Amino acid sequence: MRYSEMFLPTVKETPSDAEVVSHKLMLRAGMIRKLAGGIYSYLPLGYRAIRKVEQIVREEMDRTGAQEVFLPAVQPAELWKESGRWNFYGKELLRLRDRHNRDYCIGPTHEEVITDLIRDEIQTYRQLPKNLYQIQTKFRDEIRPRFGVMRSREFGMKDAYSFDVDEAGAEESYKKMFDAYNRIFERCGFHFRAVEADSGSIGGSYSHEFMVTADTGEDAMVFCSSCAYAANLEKAEVNRPEGISVDEAEPASPEDVYTPDVKTIEEVCRFLDVGPEQVVKTLIFLCDDRPVAALVRGDEEINEIKLKNHLGCDVIELATEEIISEVTESPRGFAGPIGIKCDVIADYSLITMTNFVVGANRENYHIRGCNIGRDFEVAEYADLRFVKEGDTCPRCGGSLNFARGIEVGHVFKLGTKYSKAMNATFLDSDGKEKHMIMGCYGIGIGRTVAACIEQSNDKDGIVWPMTIAPYQVIITPINVNQEELLKAAEDIYGALQKRGIEVILDDRDERAGVKFKDADLIGIPIRVTIGARSLAEGNVEVKVRKSGAVEAIPLEKVEDFIADTVAEGLAQ
Amino acid sequence: MRYSEMFLPTVKETPSDAEVVSHKLMLRAGMIRKLAGGIYSYLPLGYRAIRKVEQIVREEMDRTGAQEVFLPAVQPAELWKESGRWNFYGKELLRLRDRHNRDYCIGPTHEEVITDLIRDEIQTYRQLPKNLYQIQTKFRDEIRPRFGVMRSREFGMKDAYSFDVDEAGAEESYKKMFDAYNRIFERCGFHFRAVEADSGSIGGSYSHEFMVTADTGEDAMVFCSSCAYAANLEKAEVNRPEGISVDEAEPASPEDVYTPDVKTIEEVCRFLDVGPEQVVKTLIFLCDDRPVAALVRGDEEINEIKLKNHLGCDVIELATEEIISEVTESPRGFAGPIGIKCDVIADYSLITMTNFVVGANRENYHIRGCNIGRDFEVAEYADLRFVKEGDTCPRCGGSLNFARGIEVGHVFKLGTKYSKAMNATFLDSDGKEKHMIMGCYGIGIGRTVAACIEQSNDKDGIVWPMTIAPYQVIITPINVNQEELLKAAEDIYGALQKRGIEVILDDRDERAGVKFKDADLIGIPIRVTIGARSLAEGNVEVKVRKSGAVEAIPLEKVEDFIADTVAEGLAQ
Repeated sequence: MRYSEMFLPTVKETPSDAEVVSHKLMLRAGMIRKLAGGIYSYLPLGYRAIRKVEQIVREEMDRTGAQEVFLPAVQPAELWKESGRWNFYGKELLRLRDRHNRDYCIGPTHEEVITDLIRDEIQTYRQLPKNLYQIQTKFRDEIRPRFGVMRSREFGMKDAYSFDVDEAGAEESYKKMFDAYNRIFERCGFHFRAVEADSGSIGGSYSHEFMVTADTGEDAMVFCSSCAYAANLEKAEVNRPEGISVDEAEPASPEDVYTPDVKTIEEVCRFLDVGPEQVVKTLIFLCDDRPVAALVRGDEEINEIKLKNHLGCDVIELATEEIISEVTESPRGFAGPIGIKCDVIADYSLITMTNFVVGANRENYHIRGCNIGRDFEVAEYADLRFVKEGDTCPRCGGSLNFARGIEVGHVFKLGTKYSKAMNATFLDSDGKEKHMIMGCYGIGIGRTVAACIEQSNDKDGIVWPMTIAPYQVIITPINVNQEELLKAAEDIYGALQKRGIEVILDDRDERAGVKFKDADLIGIPIRVTIGARSLAEGNVEVKVRKSGAVEAIPLEKVEDFIADTVAEGLAQ
Repeated sequence: MRYSEMFLPTVKETPSDAEVVSHKLMLRAGMIRKLAGGIYSYLPLGYRAIRKVEQIVREEMDRTGAQEVFLPAVQPAELWKESGRWNFYGKELLRLRDRHNRDYCIGPTHEEVITDLIRDEIQTYRQLPKNLYQIQTKFRDEIRPRFGVMRSREFGMKDAYSFDVDEAGAEESYKKMFDAYNRIFERCGFHFRAVEADSGSIGGSYSHEFMVTADTGEDAMVFCSSCAYAANLEKAEVNRPEGISVDEAEPASPEDVYTPDVKTIEEVCRFLDVGPEQVVKTLIFLCDDRPVAALVRGDEEINEIKLKNHLGCDVIELATEEIISEVTESPRGFAGPIGIKCDVIADYSLITMTNFVVGANRENYHIRGCNIGRDFEVAEYADLRFVKEGDTCPRCGGSLNFARGIEVGHVFKLGTKYSKAMNATFLDSDGKEKHMIMGCYGIGIGRTVAACIEQSNDKDGIVWPMTIAPYQVIITPINVNQEELLKAAEDIYGALQKRGIEVILDDRDERAGVKFKDADLIGIPIRVTIGARSLAEGNVEVKVRKSGAVEAIPLEKVEDFIADTVAEGLAQ
């Protein structure tokens, strides 16, 4: 397209309200504009990148035999009530009423709709397996949308849903999607990792997140330096210590210590002159209305998701002051396991602890010299804490490293969570009615584009991989008022277009510097510069955005040279 | 794709709740399923047809230089308040509140959002003209959604918006879209007509609807048998009669007649033994709170849109009993122009009427022998009625014919309606700030697919044109348990796929009759049947769905033959 005709409003200044580089560059490169909080319009350049990603996703999904559908955005409440998520989903679910005062929501995801469709249409095992996907707009009413299209409220997503007759089939469907996701993100040119993840509000038994590694990423990933183990921070496991003998020190006697106004672990350590690894934190949670005390070592952080999953409850939250004073008979800050009126569950790290400090369940008092068994009982030990860098790998015993990443995809084994809730059954080959085994698989389309920029940019702007670049080539005549420059540019422009190459002709009457800056900012992989001097020698200058390499190419070879470079970039 | 793996739930029975053939066939062919009233899921076969139409639309839009964007579905109320449509749009606008209790709507159209975007990004005439389009999901909360995806609440639409510096530019943009629409609907294989139309709630000065001719169409079109004039029924004009002398009959004296319980035109005619063309109907409307009496001949129908446009009011509705008794001092059913306490406006047809019957503004009384001028005054004459078949063409004086159609596209000249309301200005070459001149252009994507079926089907099912067909070819081995049949089928299947032809292999272990019925129902343009007898002779049977023509083609030629037939179909 001719630059002069494009709707491509680039901006020199860095927008003040953008925190991350992808957001800044998408605004500056005229790819997106904000309409409202967390709601963005895609401008032509931005939407071309989106469509590139969509096309890659489609091709790889189709290759697995998945079939594309298009499900409604506006969904009746009845289905969400059937699955139980109408109440469960909270304020992220954008609810509305139609003119007849019936309840609907704008779909943040489509498990309910697809399960409803499939249960009506699938009767026997002969019709399974099936995998249906769509690329469609979702809405999640995030309380704090941020980072542009990375965490927006309205966003484009590819979501796929598989239905199988048994676990083995479901595992195969999951594997197909896992492999397809790897191909998709490879084609996007990503450095990425698939990490084990928690299933969150989608539910189900097992899931992986696909994380693009980026220092600016919102998410922490954990991976082993020795084996293939990788998980997100919420999920990363700690094994139960085995064959480790406890501290051989003589058990001390428990001793009440007056600790006025000493509440935090830090204060306790300073006051009692002990390390945090000698202190036990007691945190009281309300797990589906039942109070539970969770114990972790003073230098560890409790992982509420692990606690929630371990207890198998729907909702978990820190107990209120009122509940705390009920179970500890003391104000907040002095809770401890001795004499507490609720179940006590302890992190594995406590197994090896002796003579430690706990809260006394009495205002301004702690107890030191405590030991499990003698002073209080623990209902059970479990993995309750976040891993830390350098922790032991739960698979191989190696050492765990941390990295930051951006989640671009997520695959879930749902099991029968939705098929049971919504009664999606089939007649199996043995004539028995069974629930379908489901999986679901998501890719954030806008987020994939943003992650691409996050991972591939420099001080001048975006550096697109050829596969996602909105245009592959930009032709820049240095001065459009010099007829021979413009003519050479037009010739190459026409020739490349004929070859199906996506090309911009920068026909603006602007200084070369302005044009170069814009070309760099919008990140077009190949720039063809046409200047008077090199043209006089029969050459044009071809610059590769990524490497910065500049080459003088004879006019008669430029077409082939560019076509080859584009093809190479697409094949990578 | 292999039929056995497809999610293609065909249905033998005609669904009882479907009124029109496209709705019936889309359900039966497993293209769509209803999720809620006016809300449909597209299944794989249906969505393939949708994507075909989208691709045609994209290609033709891009060819005009229009650029694709993607605007949010969820739109803040502020913009709609700025344009004045938040209050004006009524219940079709699906309103909602987010978690912060802010007002939004789900976009039924995008004039507000695009005007907001453009006013922020366009400063000077050098940046104009621009035409931006998108293909996207809209929602209109229709009170009575019907005919499947033809008039659904949630629907896919291509909408484009043009911005120009002056009327001449706007006219050119309009013309480009008009031409593009013609090409789009030609490529869809339609018999269609562009007809003049009213601008309705979108507003603006001028518009055309693209109507696919179909007996089952919701809309009536009017066209001249002699010239190119065509309009929809709402818009079709009647000229003011010229040079016609009025009835030369001696003016009668007005005479009150006791007409007990005689209210309708039919009752009046029977009671007084006159034709309806001798009676004047008096209809009282409330036009933006002002009562107006509209007079039309007894055998004509008032066209409220014409009346509304003529009076230039925002809202028009029939007056309530209360208003009627205020202006006529009598109950409903006896209103007449003599002594009425509001402005009187008369349809052109009254110009030539003399000695006619009117209501007496008095219960159970009419007046006969009335004449305008002598008995009452008319504020003005205007074109207020619907045309009838056989009426005179407003352009050439020929005779008007009627046909039924389905509106698939609509192009509007908006003028400055939105740019003024939302202050979208630019600096012109003379340094003056001016309002942009806008146009907007819509195509219903799902409706285009439905219209295609409406126009092209037979008793056995859908008859797709090659350009929209979800698959181009279906290969039907008569018996998949005969190895040589299946092998031949697989060979052709693989070969056609390699050529980029979209092909189904019906590998189901079903009777041939079942397979043929399904192939006809889903309307695939070319069926390749592989039977034992013809295969023994080295042939397969190729059937063209549209013509029903069957040809025996030698195995070694079948690939080329099909590729040619497909290419031919696509080129039409």
